[in-house]
Amino acid sequence: MTATLPGSAGSGRGRSATAPASLAWARDLVQPALRAAVDRLDPQLRPVVGYHLGWLDEHGQPVRTSGGKAVRPALTLLAAQAAGGQAQAAVPGAVAVELVHNFSLVHDDLMDRDVSRRHRATVWSLWGDATAVLAGDAMLSLAHEVLLECGSPYAARAGAVVAAGTRELVHGQALDMAFERRDRVSVAECEQMAAGKTGALMSASAAVGAVLAGAAQPVVTGLADYGAQVGLAFQLVDDLLGIWGDPAVTGKPVHSDLRAGKKSLPITWAVEHGGEAGTALARWLARDRDGAREPSDLQEAAGLVERSGARAWAAAQAARRIDQATRGLDPLAVAGGDGADRAEALAALDQLRTLAHFVVDRQA
Amino acid sequence: MTATLPGSAGSGRGRSATAPASLAWARDLVQPALRAAVDRLDPQLRPVVGYHLGWLDEHGQPVRTSGGKAVRPALTLLAAQAAGGQAQAAVPGAVAVELVHNFSLVHDDLMDRDVSRRHRATVWSLWGDATAVLAGDAMLSLAHEVLLECGSPYAARAGAVVAAGTRELVHGQALDMAFERRDRVSVAECEQMAAGKTGALMSASAAVGAVLAGAAQPVVTGLADYGAQVGLAFQLVDDLLGIWGDPAVTGKPVHSDLRAGKKSLPITWAVEHGGEAGTALARWLARDRDGAREPSDLQEAAGLVERSGARAWAAAQAARRIDQATRGLDPLAVAGGDGADRAEALAALDQLRTLAHFVVDRQA
Repeated sequence: MTATLPGSAGSGRGRSATAPASLAWARDLVQPALRAAVDRLDPQLRPVVGYHLGWLDEHGQPVRTSGGKAVRPALTLLAAQAAGGQAQAAVPGAVAVELVHNFSLVHDDLMDRDVSRRHRATVWSLWGDATAVLAGDAMLSLAHEVLLECGSPYAARAGAVVAAGTRELVHGQALDMAFERRDRVSVAECEQMAAGKTGALMSASAAVGAVLAGAAQPVVTGLADYGAQVGLAFQLVDDLLGIWGDPAVTGKPVHSDLRAGKKSLPITWAVEHGGEAGTALARWLARDRDGAREPSDLQEAAGLVERSGARAWAAAQAARRIDQATRGLDPLAVAGGDGADRAEALAALDQLRTLAHFVVDRQA
Repeated sequence: MTATLPGSAGSGRGRSATAPASLAWARDLVQPALRAAVDRLDPQLRPVVGYHLGWLDEHGQPVRTSGGKAVRPALTLLAAQAAGGQAQAAVPGAVAVELVHNFSLVHDDLMDRDVSRRHRATVWSLWGDATAVLAGDAMLSLAHEVLLECGSPYAARAGAVVAAGTRELVHGQALDMAFERRDRVSVAECEQMAAGKTGALMSASAAVGAVLAGAAQPVVTGLADYGAQVGLAFQLVDDLLGIWGDPAVTGKPVHSDLRAGKKSLPITWAVEHGGEAGTALARWLARDRDGAREPSDLQEAAGLVERSGARAWAAAQAARRIDQATRGLDPLAVAGGDGADRAEALAALDQLRTLAHFVVDRQA
């Protein structure tokens, strides 16, 4: 089964890209704890973090904007249920992974000098570099504080999972920066980067839910693997959206990754395996690296990526990752529990499958 | 008893400023675990962190330089002993606080645009902003990873102490940045900043040792208070060194804080309470804020701080903090234990007193 991918030619999709109910459910469950956590921050950084999370405008006045999809908290809460536990027990873990995710966004926007995120100005572009560094640092500390103070007997193990995931995430970003200074990057290297940048925290998000549910190690590992695969699929779709995403939906400029000369997975694949079109793309990328790129020029490059077969490869690869992720959940359905708990665990596994498919079907 | 302060007129000191043996002892105990922790980092960031810690040169070749005084690890290990535990059990805590301290140095140097630290070029000045952000982020994650994976039944509580201390530390730095944009800062505000920037992590360093020793809450609180007072004294001495420190010893330019127009504690006190000399200093600070300052000009400003009484105030204030810190340890000597453990605990309390005095006697 092939998932329909954003902007792909055949638009008669078999599955809707409507966000699954689990995302809204997770947001509602996590929101009060997340707000209580952010309330602990000092008066200097609280409004900055509140702005970034979509709760405040830049003057500190309350607003309602989308604070992101909350995919990671949903992974945590569903993983806890799938492992036979209660979602409520995993809320501190969900808050922690959401804070780590947002710490990384604020620091990444600064490093990449991105001026807009979720249709709004980025933290560094409004308050400067130092405030962006500090707001990120505060969120990362707060993530651990919330998780370690939650009183769970599994708090230390959960915190260790989050910390290791964060270290891998930072490594992924370090690779990304290193690759920007290089002419050629292999697909394998690019996948390693994506595994760090996106796979590691999604994996940790699912694992931390299982840990807080008191799950045995094989269950934790199974859910961690699921999260890692979903993360890689997520990155592939992000890369497709970075070339063909609708600016009105993504909030990014058209052809944004080509404009920025980013070595994303489809671009890297095109150069490595894309035949003549790939060679032409490599020439295009090498040419005039720092110059402003014209719209017609970007259109041409996007056409080269498409003709190289890289768009189809990335779509198929994302579908394969999702297939692997969901099949990896099957053995978990066999594991223990009965009655109401077991029914809830099976329902959570189903929702994890739905969430995985949403990741490849989304438009932004 | 008044501690002899750096560069103060009367140099006939009653106490030597030689580093106490506990610092070398702590460095030796912590070093293998700290190196093992840093070895977990990826090949991109490991050499950067190794450079910052003084183990490598900028090309990744081993060197031997001073990686800092290791005051925080010593606080952790001595606090564990003072609380009746073994130093060895607190090593993961000592590694964690040393990593958090160094995370904050790398980020602070970037935010303050300082080009030199410990007589060497700073991370951002060698590798750029993004690498400095990521190296700091990696150290902060690693701190939690090491502590939470140590297997201690007190790991979660210890991690929560470190996380809360880090959040306060970040708040202190946020205040520092905010104050730079203001004309006037009160002594009370400046003390709040110092409590965050320096007091919070020193407090957490001592507290985490006690927590890992399994100490009861009053003992943890007692040692946390001691650490907070030592931290404030440390900052006062840093501020004195920032004006009158010997560049050959501190590795900073002469009159560095005046050159940078920093609102340090003595400078803030001079402006608020320093009479005519303070008023003249305020005029000097307001004048030509962004212009380069001549050596004779800086000499004049340092003279104003001295004549305002701020130098004597800061010295007396540091001595008072140390007095308070050491007196706060007295009740801990009454608490339990006997035989060898009790002798070790009493010896550790003595070493904490010695360490407190060293903090005000040091020249760099």
